[in-house]
Amino acid sequence: MNRLFFNDVVTRDGFQIEPNFIETADKVALINALSRCGFAKIEATSFTSAKAIPMLRDAEIVMGEIDRVPGVEYTVLVPNLRGAERALAAHVDELNLVMSTSETHNLANLRRSCGDSFLGLSEVIRYVDQATAINVSLSTCFGCPMEGDVPLETVRLWARQFADLGVRGITICDTTGMANPEQVRVMVGVLQRDLPDTQLTLHFHNTRGMGLANVLAAAQGGITRFDGSLGGLGGCPYAPGASGNICSEDAINMLDSMGYDTGIDIPRLLTVARGLPALVGHAVPGQLLRAGLTTDLHAAPVQA
Amino acid sequence: MNRLFFNDVVTRDGFQIEPNFIETADKVALINALSRCGFAKIEATSFTSAKAIPMLRDAEIVMGEIDRVPGVEYTVLVPNLRGAERALAAHVDELNLVMSTSETHNLANLRRSCGDSFLGLSEVIRYVDQATAINVSLSTCFGCPMEGDVPLETVRLWARQFADLGVRGITICDTTGMANPEQVRVMVGVLQRDLPDTQLTLHFHNTRGMGLANVLAAAQGGITRFDGSLGGLGGCPYAPGASGNICSEDAINMLDSMGYDTGIDIPRLLTVARGLPALVGHAVPGQLLRAGLTTDLHAAPVQA
Repeated sequence: MNRLFFNDVVTRDGFQIEPNFIETADKVALINALSRCGFAKIEATSFTSAKAIPMLRDAEIVMGEIDRVPGVEYTVLVPNLRGAERALAAHVDELNLVMSTSETHNLANLRRSCGDSFLGLSEVIRYVDQATAINVSLSTCFGCPMEGDVPLETVRLWARQFADLGVRGITICDTTGMANPEQVRVMVGVLQRDLPDTQLTLHFHNTRGMGLANVLAAAQGGITRFDGSLGGLGGCPYAPGASGNICSEDAINMLDSMGYDTGIDIPRLLTVARGLPALVGHAVPGQLLRAGLTTDLHAAPVQA
Repeated sequence: MNRLFFNDVVTRDGFQIEPNFIETADKVALINALSRCGFAKIEATSFTSAKAIPMLRDAEIVMGEIDRVPGVEYTVLVPNLRGAERALAAHVDELNLVMSTSETHNLANLRRSCGDSFLGLSEVIRYVDQATAINVSLSTCFGCPMEGDVPLETVRLWARQFADLGVRGITICDTTGMANPEQVRVMVGVLQRDLPDTQLTLHFHNTRGMGLANVLAAAQGGITRFDGSLGGLGGCPYAPGASGNICSEDAINMLDSMGYDTGIDIPRLLTVARGLPALVGHAVPGQLLRAGLTTDLHAAPVQA
């Protein structure tokens, strides 16, 4: 089966909403551990304002101190030109830009219209000018928790506009877990035909329990790149208590057990995941952490 | 898309491992509420020994007091001839017999070999002699937590032997959540070809997070009958803390959102599910309960 490529976003997307600061050394150690599990990409941090996201105020130090393991791309979230300058100075492998395909969500999240976001991100893309790779993450592609449906044509329009600006990749995000596998099948079919030369990544949440079913539908449709978050860390502000990002090790274990080549050393990844609850101070949603591998056999009970 | 048929097993499979007795009146009320959600079948209780499973010691009273809503089949788990006598006296719509396809699991769970289980269940089937429908649930079809792999040929063999005895349906169970979607695809293809005249039901667990992905794979393969448990209640003794049965409302919501006709009134089902944590005294794994429907829109935050 296809070779798949995984991007772990725990230290950016996962940590971002954690209430207690995670020490810089712990972030560096976690990224270094993940780097040795076989991820194609790691979203290490975000070059945003320290005031907006205090958790990621140490972005420069993190990027300066981590090991840059060959074969792993280190990407960072960048909201604007100032963030792009900082990211380039830190020699990142990729800038990940973000905007929403829903006007209401973009206004709520980024405080500007989609059109203004596009202009701002276009400026970043021109500024970077091939100095490093650029990915654009499009939020709420499968639905907006405030607007409801987001038309497929709207997603196609924004994806094509960014592809026309020469970005290497586009991530189609189910930001609040509204996608279903049939919608995924249709969307990945259309977008792959629209953008045959663009790296497409799918970013799913498990908010309503169907995160891995959506991964399956995307993989069946030919998608080879996925975001995931160690332990399933990272929530959804519109559904308190619900799961957020799909859990990297759960998704990777599913695809590996199906025969896909994920490139990931799953026992090693599980070892890294086991340290996560202590690091963040609470249980995490990942199931494989609790259940163990299917190959972990149990002793038969002693008969009375 | 296909019409699908759901069997909710919460009051048998879900309640069975709950530590605190659930009052008979509460069981009756829950079954009555589920009966009005559109389930094709409800596994109401088990006619087993009160000593073995004290939680289900009220099987006769439950079966006597519930409303028998037209269109809903009320099935009960039956371990042996004595159970079958009691079930027939209670005028159930179906007897659900169970054995494992793994010798070690069958020994551990039922304290006899698979061959002895088959002989015992054959006797039950002869005794019932078309008086009511019979379903056989085959455990550990996708792997045994003690033996590991269970060969597909073994599952085929037992399924065919029961089909040859004239049972109406066979449930293929992933008892401890070891299945993956590729294995599901292969197995449902083979079994549907082997047994075109037998109702096949798939029973999945979410132990490793891929329960709904397995449901998707089975539905894609043409399976129309699924077990689920309200709220995802029911655990796995070999993976403490892991999820057990797939959550009925999560699975049904996925398939409904894909366009399948599930026959279920999902808002009504969610209302029933919302009462479950109080009934059992703890949180349950279901995600839809926390996240709400995708059509539940949220107000945009007020801008400062």
